[in-house]
Amino acid sequence: MSETTPAPEDSGRSRLSRRALLGGAGAGVVVAAAGGMAVGRATAPEPEESSEIVAFRGERQAGIVTAAQDRLHFASFDVVTESRDDLVAMLKAWTVAAERMTRGEETVENGATGLGNYVPPADTGEALGLSPSKLTLTIGFGPGLFGPTAAFPGRGDRFGLADRKPAVLQDLPIFAAERIDPLRSYGDICVQACADDPQVAVHAIRNLARMGFGVVAVRWSQLGFGRTASTTQAQETPRNMFGFKDGTANLRAEDTDLLDRWVWVDAADNPPGAQWMTGGSYLVARRIRMDIEPWDRANLLEQEQIIGREKNSGAPLGQKKEFDTPDFQITSYGAPMIPRNAHVRLAHPDNLGGVQILRRGYNFTDGSDGFGHLDAGLFFIAFNRDPQTQFIPMQQELSRRDAMTEYLIPNGSSIFAVPPGLADGEWWGQGLFES
Amino acid sequence: MSETTPAPEDSGRSRLSRRALLGGAGAGVVVAAAGGMAVGRATAPEPEESSEIVAFRGERQAGIVTAAQDRLHFASFDVVTESRDDLVAMLKAWTVAAERMTRGEETVENGATGLGNYVPPADTGEALGLSPSKLTLTIGFGPGLFGPTAAFPGRGDRFGLADRKPAVLQDLPIFAAERIDPLRSYGDICVQACADDPQVAVHAIRNLARMGFGVVAVRWSQLGFGRTASTTQAQETPRNMFGFKDGTANLRAEDTDLLDRWVWVDAADNPPGAQWMTGGSYLVARRIRMDIEPWDRANLLEQEQIIGREKNSGAPLGQKKEFDTPDFQITSYGAPMIPRNAHVRLAHPDNLGGVQILRRGYNFTDGSDGFGHLDAGLFFIAFNRDPQTQFIPMQQELSRRDAMTEYLIPNGSSIFAVPPGLADGEWWGQGLFES
Repeated sequence: MSETTPAPEDSGRSRLSRRALLGGAGAGVVVAAAGGMAVGRATAPEPEESSEIVAFRGERQAGIVTAAQDRLHFASFDVVTESRDDLVAMLKAWTVAAERMTRGEETVENGATGLGNYVPPADTGEALGLSPSKLTLTIGFGPGLFGPTAAFPGRGDRFGLADRKPAVLQDLPIFAAERIDPLRSYGDICVQACADDPQVAVHAIRNLARMGFGVVAVRWSQLGFGRTASTTQAQETPRNMFGFKDGTANLRAEDTDLLDRWVWVDAADNPPGAQWMTGGSYLVARRIRMDIEPWDRANLLEQEQIIGREKNSGAPLGQKKEFDTPDFQITSYGAPMIPRNAHVRLAHPDNLGGVQILRRGYNFTDGSDGFGHLDAGLFFIAFNRDPQTQFIPMQQELSRRDAMTEYLIPNGSSIFAVPPGLADGEWWGQGLFES
Repeated sequence: MSETTPAPEDSGRSRLSRRALLGGAGAGVVVAAAGGMAVGRATAPEPEESSEIVAFRGERQAGIVTAAQDRLHFASFDVVTESRDDLVAMLKAWTVAAERMTRGEETVENGATGLGNYVPPADTGEALGLSPSKLTLTIGFGPGLFGPTAAFPGRGDRFGLADRKPAVLQDLPIFAAERIDPLRSYGDICVQACADDPQVAVHAIRNLARMGFGVVAVRWSQLGFGRTASTTQAQETPRNMFGFKDGTANLRAEDTDLLDRWVWVDAADNPPGAQWMTGGSYLVARRIRMDIEPWDRANLLEQEQIIGREKNSGAPLGQKKEFDTPDFQITSYGAPMIPRNAHVRLAHPDNLGGVQILRRGYNFTDGSDGFGHLDAGLFFIAFNRDPQTQFIPMQQELSRRDAMTEYLIPNGSSIFAVPPGLADGEWWGQGLFES
């Protein structure tokens, strides 16, 4: 992508009419077209024709700084073929289908009902008639795609990608106080589907899984019923299953300098083989079961001291309003008002050498745990430029010292390299496979 | 409840202002008040002050013919105490909290943050600031509450309710082609929470579960991400995970005569001890895993012949529009256009001696099945007046003959007696425990 014609990102929302640009629904099949951004892109004056559509292509993948949608379906896939050609063909087909689905279209035109009686429909149909619902589909590649990993030491370099592997893309280490379930962790490819209508997100994942039959298999998937992060200044801070506002101090789409510093991978970060990640980010996914029953029996003071914020307002303890700056020096009866092991103190950049990350997690509830409790918690998603110097040291600090860990049981842990966005004509993974 | 002053139901939406009637939020604690409908109820002229609130009280429980909300959290509880007093106390407390939550209020006033620092908050807080979202909470009582059942033959009559047990409230029989998981089935009490915002539904179930600690324990719970039934004429027919419109021929709130015939329990239906069920209904819940991968490989003709409807329009085969009447006599090349084993034919009242039910199910996706597939399907909920003569024979017919069963794996099966609605001052289960 040319440095001189960056696509306007604006919280992931396109300012131009994609249908007008492409000249009709059928033109959605653009895989064969040459790369490069359409010249008219930056000058197209029309607002997006539907506020329910988030642009699929651009400098960055949508679904990172895009205003966090209400619902999530996240899937991690094992690649089950050894054929690089089959994998590339699937990624090309996925790209076409993904772009169409983000526009509210079927995976292929008339896919559900218009291809004839004697073929399986090319679209499963459950999203027919639904709005695009701001669907974003964000792809990432796991360490296992590139050869052996900590979790799969016997894995070979199935696709000749070993020299393209970013040095920082390693299975996350074992942290304190976690009980990782391998069947909720790892994976060679992830797709994060976010939408305001969950049926639209589920439809997207289901159709990609279906198209990938024989090439990929669902390793795990996670539904998130409610966002726990704001990624733009316009969004109100949501609450997590502890009942607290979550993500008040999150990075936002508007913090472009901070995003460059903490989220987007710079060319200088990468060895020569991994330049395909320039402009991308690293996605960390952690399924964090919350022990909500003991939490609910903790008194309000204890809850607020564990978090370091007031439950109602979200204000840092000792302050008045949610967005007031925490003051870690204030004391009360000789002790810090924000305790030394409070989450907000330990997760604050001041405690972490300045490190920040972009969070984009979702609340989940997956039935019962079989012991009379709800299996509920936070499906934590974070984007960072370098997990080795950001998420991992942060989590090492929090998992050892954060008072909140007493109520957390992380049981899923995954990392994926999320490449930059696609120019017109490009396909998911093209930079990785063709660079 | 007086027969002469029925509460207007109108698709479950109240026509009066509850806040105005009760004179303020604090008055929500009405358990101690004497029973009987408020006199002014039928004449109150004001529309509901918020279109986001569905009235909690009325002739019927809300959540049955109420216009089906978008999202579901359904919980089934085992009663873990032998104390009738504790159970009754919990049901009284649940009633107060449930009514408050349907108004968008906390379980108790200022429960999350206003009761003092040294007590656990009485509300978990994650719904603070959210709209009431048309929350309905519907309670039902399972066979196990009344003594031994097919699934729990050793159970005693713990609460002295054996003579109150409706004769038709029996564990569902084993049907053909199902693989019932006991940990997704049965339960002594159910609460169906429906809302347009899933966080509101999850919050309600979570707080009821929490309040019931020591009295009940969650046996199983199920999140439903999208409705698969319309229960009023104004609602568009949604699609299930087979991609087909589901529930076109469903009973609707407007079909009052049919509801009296097929949904609401009549006084004459009950033995003397079970008069508490007059005006109620029986809820059948079935978790139906769909084999979506093989389904997706079936061609369109096969899919449409299995369902008996066109995938796109939802029209019965041989007809033009969704709501056209199926004509089972039409043939094509000598064979019936709607095959003999098509779902729409077998489930049609003509094939079932006229029997109908009210469906109110939801699509679900619960991660992966561990074999590379999504664990997705339909959480089937149906209300009927007599499961012995309606749901059970219907399901026996379908499970043996319906072509669709090849793609279904029912793995949860439960039944609950859903009492009628509450008059002001009444509490959940009062009719059962005090009649």
